[in-house]
Amino acid sequence: MILAKVIGTVWATHKDEKITGMKLQIVQPVNLDYKPKKDFFVAVDSVGAGVGEIVLVVQGSSARQTELTENKAVDATIMAIVDKLDAEMEK
Amino acid sequence: MILAKVIGTVWATHKDEKITGMKLQIVQPVNLDYKPKKDFFVAVDSVGAGVGEIVLVVQGSSARQTELTENKAVDATIMAIVDKLDAEMEK
Amino acid sequence: MILAKVIGTVWATHKDEKITGMKLQIVQPVNLDYKPKKDFFVAVDSVGAGVGEIVLVVQGSSARQTELTENKAVDATIMAIVDKLDAEMEK
Amino acid sequence: MILAKVIGTVWATHKDEKITGMKLQIVQPVNLDYKPKKDFFVAVDSVGAGVGEIVLVVQGSSARQTELTENKAVDATIMAIVDKLDAEMEK
Amino acid sequence: MILAKVIGTVWATHKDEKITGMKLQIVQPVNLDYKPKKDFFVAVDSVGAGVGEIVLVVQGSSARQTELTENKAVDATIMAIVDKLDAEMEK
Repeated sequence: MILAKVIGTVWATHKDEKITGMKLQIVQPVNLDYKPKKDFFVAVDSVGAGVGEIVLVVQGSSARQTELTENKAVDATIMAIVDKLDAEMEK
Repeated sequence: MILAKVIGTVWATHKDEKITGMKLQIVQPVNLDYKPKKDFFVAVDSVGAGVGEIVLVVQGSSARQTELTENKAVDATIMAIVDKLDAEMEK
Repeated sequence: MILAKVIGTVWATHKDEKITGMKLQIVQPVNLDYKPKKDFFVAVDSVGAGVGEIVLVVQGSSARQTELTENKAVDATIMAIVDKLDAEMEK
Repeated sequence: MILAKVIGTVWATHKDEKITGMKLQIVQPVNLDYKPKKDFFVAVDSVGAGVGEIVLVVQGSSARQTELTENKAVDATIMAIVDKLDAEMEK
Repeated sequence: MILAKVIGTVWATHKDEKITGMKLQIVQPVNLDYKPKKDFFVAVDSVGAGVGEIVLVVQGSSARQTELTENKAVDATIMAIVDKLDAEMEK
């Protein structure tokens, strides 16, 4: 899973039937100090994360292993809101 | 899922039977301001997206989770046409 | 799927039983103008592509979704020979 | 699988039901001499690895192939604690 | 599949039950002339490859498609020993 920040939302009325009703959030991966990296992608939100929150995103086929995303055309899912972390990069 | 722009089409008469009849679109990933990144790949179109449209592309095994692509040799599928997005990269 | 050129063949007599009889081709990803990129990998050929041909390669679990590669230890399959494409990278 | 060092832990009370009770460890990939690389990600611990230990991490759908992680929204799992390795990078 | 050289072995007594008895080899991807690239990872050996041999490694869920690795927490498997290859990078 990767650490990311929710930075916004995508709207798409014309989409595959199976993903109707899902919230598509834009997430930006972050470092351990929550400083953003330079990329972003779109993830389905399964935990009600709001913009600005630090979350964990699961990718690939495992992104379909939540009740909301089972058998859906989804390759990234927000599956946890991070309370805190205790770690420091080693050099 | 990633944000991309449809920039063209590929024709292939000689192909695996299971993908007959699918439209193979060339997509170029874009930034949040829709400015293109420097790469491209080929995705099956499941939503009727035209050249120039901004879309969401699902990759990996989840690309097979639409009615059109089920059990097909497809690793990237356009599964939504983007209406708008509300997000800004953090620095 | 990615666009690539077939540049050669690998021979391996000592291999997993399940891939016996498959042709292992070396492919080099190319740009939209068919100019080669700087990497390569090995793909099973499901469409009879010859050296020098431009093909589409499907990767990951979807590489097992052809009759030839079903349930095989294969993570990349040539699934189409490209006739032509109509697209231009945006800047 | 990749070689990594456990450098910390993430806490998340608000998370997908299916991952309740799993320990989320932060791992930093390392070189053969155990010197850290510059990235990190989050993995579920299936072997009781402590901070500072060198481990093997399995990614993708295979991360769900332990008793603990079966059918869970998990894309990275610590599946072994490394005792020693005998290898040298070739130049 | 990618072309790689076996450069060593990892020992791990404390590991997920399902991978007991598998040989964990360290592989370094190589170019067409067998010159090593700058990265490495760990793969299960399904063909009895020794250190110094050039092999093909299958990754992702397809790494579980050998008799040895079926349903195991394995994301990379050595599935062939390369006899020879006939290819040249295009520029």
